[in-house]
Parts: sequence; C-alpha cells; structure tokens
Amino acid sequence: MFTLDPRLASDSYPVHLLSLCDVRLKRDSAANPWLLLVPRRPNLVEIHDLAPVDRHALIDEIGQVTAALKAASSCDKINVAAFGNTVPQMHVHVIARFTMDPWWPGPLDMTASGSPWDDAARQSFCARLIDAL
Amino acid sequence: MFTLDPRLASDSYPVHLLSLCDVRLKRDSAANPWLLLVPRRPNLVEIHDLAPVDRHALIDEIGQVTAALKAASSCDKINVAAFGNTVPQMHVHVIARFTMDPWWPGPLDMTASGSPWDDAARQSFCARLIDAL
Repeated sequence: MFTLDPRLASDSYPVHLLSLCDVRLKRDSAANPWLLLVPRRPNLVEIHDLAPVDRHALIDEIGQVTAALKAASSCDKINVAAFGNTVPQMHVHVIARFTMDPWWPGPLDMTASGSPWDDAARQSFCARLIDAL
Repeated sequence: MFTLDPRLASDSYPVHLLSLCDVRLKRDSAANPWLLLVPRRPNLVEIHDLAPVDRHALIDEIGQVTAALKAASSCDKINVAAFGNTVPQMHVHVIARFTMDPWWPGPLDMTASGSPWDDAARQSFCARLIDAL
C-alpha cells in the first residue's frame, strides 16, 4: 500500500494525478518551477525496482511532464533527476532551467532557499501546466 | 545520423553498447563510479524528443545499468540525472553514491576534480559491470 512520504508531502503542493504518478510542485520554486513525479507504488527506491510496465509508464509520464513544463514555463532546458539520498521513496525531479538563472549551467542548488510562490502566480502556473498535460 | 558529442567523448571512456545507448565511464570517477548513457539517435535534447519505442528502451537500459552499477560498485544509492545544460546532446548520468562520500546526501559536485582511475582498477571495474549487464 502506497503512502506519500511526509517530507515530500510537506515540501510540495499537489497539482495533478497521472496514471502512475502524483505530480507535485515544489514550494518556493517560483523562479525555477520545479515538479516532483512520485509513482504511487510501495517500496520503490531504484529504477530497477520498477516493474517493466510501470517503468514504461514512468518514462512516458516524465515525457508528458517535460513537454508540459516547457510549454507552461517557456524555459530554456529541462533538468530531470532521481536522487533519493535523503528521501528514499522514489521521486523524480523535473525542473525548468533558464540560461539567466544564477546556477546556470550547473545543477540547481537543491538546498538554497528558493523564491516563494505568490498564490495567484502558483494557481495560474498550475492551470497552464494542467492544460498542457 | 548520430555522432557522439566530442565533449562527451573526451570526458569518458567507452565501456559497452546496449541496443539504444552507448555506456561510457566518466574519467576521474574512481571514488564514485559514474556512467553516461547516450542514446544513439540524432537531435535528442529533452525526454519528450524520444520516440515512444526509444523512450521505453532508454528506461529499460537505465534500469539495467542501475542494477549492474549497484552490483559492480556495492554502492548505497544510485543517482540518475539528465541535465544537458552544457552539452545538449541527450546523455543520462548514472552515478554510484556512498553514504561516506564527501557530498552525501547532496548531489555530487559535477565540477569538482574527481579521483583518477588507475588503469587496472578501471579495467577490473568495467569487467564486473559488463558481467552484471
């Protein structure tokens, strides 16, 4: 039985449900909109833990989300990563990057305090994203 | 027609060919063995650029490689990432992480000068990896 890790839950807002994954928006990611995809399956840590059918669903949903995030954010590049060093429950980061962002071309600093979402901006961004999905 | 980006070529050693991807070993990654998967298709930048059949092959090969890297390195966690901010040609990083490595639990510093491979250690590591693949 799948239960969302409470650290992922408290660090992000729910946005949308795809067939396999919860799509969530990281808090304080207004400058670089940052999504999390969390497969709703228990006990997943590494990519090779996924059943083949879920593995294919995961990459299909990552592709849906990278395309939608590009459309909704007009970003220059998408960064995709599955680390899980702190929270082992499998979650895939999908992040909008801009050539003008302060960390470009390096990876975004995951521990830097980000830029808070204004409620209206967040709702409008999520509406554009869901439209694009 | 696919040609490997010269920056990826010079930054890594060829290890193995899977059906879709070249598997390469990053130079100077002896402390945290670091593989690159490069799909042999032209003009791929984002995950949504992949044809569905190639997308499924890519995630299957990532799963093969994460399992083999875990077996060959006895690492604690695998990190998987597709950035492409500097070299846009699609390449997926698959990195062995240890709870004792200096960056844990943060992401590995991609720009830090790494630890050089001794030729014999590299050959023995690659042999174990190919066996596990």
